[in-house]
Amino acid sequence: MTSAAFDVLGIGNAIVDVIARADDRFLSKHDLTKGSMMLIDEARADALYAAMGSGIEVSGGSCGNTMAGIASFGGKGAYIGKVRNDQLGQVFGHDLRAIGVSFETPAATSGPATARCLISVTPDAQRTMSTYLGACTGLGPADIDTRLVASAQVTYVEGYLWDAPEAKKAVLKAFDAAHAAGRKVSITLSDSFCVGRYRAEFRDLIRNQVDILFGNESEITSLYEVNSFEEALEMARKEAKIAALTRSEQGSVVIKGSETYAVPAAPVAKVVDTTGAGDLYAAGFLFGFTHGKSLAECARLGGIAAAEIISHVGARPETPLKGLM
Amino acid sequence: MTSAAFDVLGIGNAIVDVIARADDRFLSKHDLTKGSMMLIDEARADALYAAMGSGIEVSGGSCGNTMAGIASFGGKGAYIGKVRNDQLGQVFGHDLRAIGVSFETPAATSGPATARCLISVTPDAQRTMSTYLGACTGLGPADIDTRLVASAQVTYVEGYLWDAPEAKKAVLKAFDAAHAAGRKVSITLSDSFCVGRYRAEFRDLIRNQVDILFGNESEITSLYEVNSFEEALEMARKEAKIAALTRSEQGSVVIKGSETYAVPAAPVAKVVDTTGAGDLYAAGFLFGFTHGKSLAECARLGGIAAAEIISHVGARPETPLKGLM
Repeated sequence: MTSAAFDVLGIGNAIVDVIARADDRFLSKHDLTKGSMMLIDEARADALYAAMGSGIEVSGGSCGNTMAGIASFGGKGAYIGKVRNDQLGQVFGHDLRAIGVSFETPAATSGPATARCLISVTPDAQRTMSTYLGACTGLGPADIDTRLVASAQVTYVEGYLWDAPEAKKAVLKAFDAAHAAGRKVSITLSDSFCVGRYRAEFRDLIRNQVDILFGNESEITSLYEVNSFEEALEMARKEAKIAALTRSEQGSVVIKGSETYAVPAAPVAKVVDTTGAGDLYAAGFLFGFTHGKSLAECARLGGIAAAEIISHVGARPETPLKGLM
Repeated sequence: MTSAAFDVLGIGNAIVDVIARADDRFLSKHDLTKGSMMLIDEARADALYAAMGSGIEVSGGSCGNTMAGIASFGGKGAYIGKVRNDQLGQVFGHDLRAIGVSFETPAATSGPATARCLISVTPDAQRTMSTYLGACTGLGPADIDTRLVASAQVTYVEGYLWDAPEAKKAVLKAFDAAHAAGRKVSITLSDSFCVGRYRAEFRDLIRNQVDILFGNESEITSLYEVNSFEEALEMARKEAKIAALTRSEQGSVVIKGSETYAVPAAPVAKVVDTTGAGDLYAAGFLFGFTHGKSLAECARLGGIAAAEIISHVGARPETPLKGLM
């Protein structure tokens, strides 16, 4: 195995967030389930946007947020994802490159616009997300540069990619290329609804291909269809090589065979917005993992990154994470 | 004079702000003068954006911010400004309509993109602005619906419009239509550099057409080329019908002939970001003016709106201003 040009290669849905305040009546009027992520088509996205209050636009996407976190720790990251050659696509690409993440996936020159996630923030600080995947559905195996995959220590993907059939094929191509080069692959379960949609495929993938699994309590209990975190943990111990499982204020538990590392959550003065906590936990963990840290230390770095992100609005770091290690 | 459908019609440069953090070295490397607004062309905008850090996109424009303030007080506003039919143009229009401001100016279907203001925020909380006017330069007399002008109690414009020759003609057409309908017209001097570019025209306009003049201390002393606020005040008293002049933490002074109303600034716990203070002062003042308030009360409402805006990042209200009256 040659030395790696990149610590982590992320593959994800390239999405620009549109964030606006809303009240509970808005959610019920538009059939939105608080705290969930729902996929919507373009017509629904246009109608929902027209009904939303004035907003701000900011680059997002679960895996994009993770890559921003890795860069913020000082790690070397690359990203594969599909935008359209439109203004929001330019914004997404700029915001990744501006923090030092390599992003060379060609933008689509026709077809749907760059993906948007319409986020309604209610007074209780919860976020309800409606995602129009747009150009993301154009991501396919042709976008996977196998030399790029081979040049990264870890290829990390989001479960959300399963929502686009060609993107799933792209992931499987990347996983094969990574393993052929002696590299590791990693996946996040993304959210419990996503797990519900692809449970069997995810379990098969975790048993046979995934080296590092990320998930939170609701995702992992959904994956194994059990009622308690402890039961899910034991299932993951049997089926996953390494699993890093997060439990909000209860910190995280990392398992690898018979080894178990329970790490408390990093202290947070005030939780402002929990969006991105899982994305940033993965960033800290993978930064540590690709820098030769112990699994317990990886979990600690994940906790530090998650604590930073939930102490302000927005899912990308405001404070350089390398200063918080 | 018939009753008015709108309290205020604003005419301005329709701009989306792109806000990113920067340090002083970034400003000097890119020849940016801290705290100023500079006009740039598309090539420079592209180069500067490529060099900037990751950012957020939010609707802006001085007059757009003022209209957002008027709507936040519960006032009825309409806006005329030119965007391109692109994604940022959609964002700008959405964000005005979402707060109840009527915005029907047709978007350009060819030519330059929607205007962007690249804002570098330094650690001292100052903002340095580089504006690419883009589609704004396409605003012209044909965009002025004289019936719309006649239906607003006050037509309010920003001095920045003088940077686009056709936009200036549009303003003059609107002023004529307003006066023909027995309505008032109002202008803000926008910034001291803008005053430097158009001093003679602005003075002529103020003497002959403007009913309400807005300016801050540096703008009004630049306009009259005097060294003190007191001298500028007496010049304004001679030349302007009504002038509302702001002095940051010293509050504002309104003059009308021999009348003088000095109103202290509203208290602010912590000044976070001064951008938009002048825009929101005008909003409060004009809301009061179009609701039959005394000039002193208009100034007080302006101060309340300015205090809200400088207590958070961003130039549009976060707290409904009608609740702060």
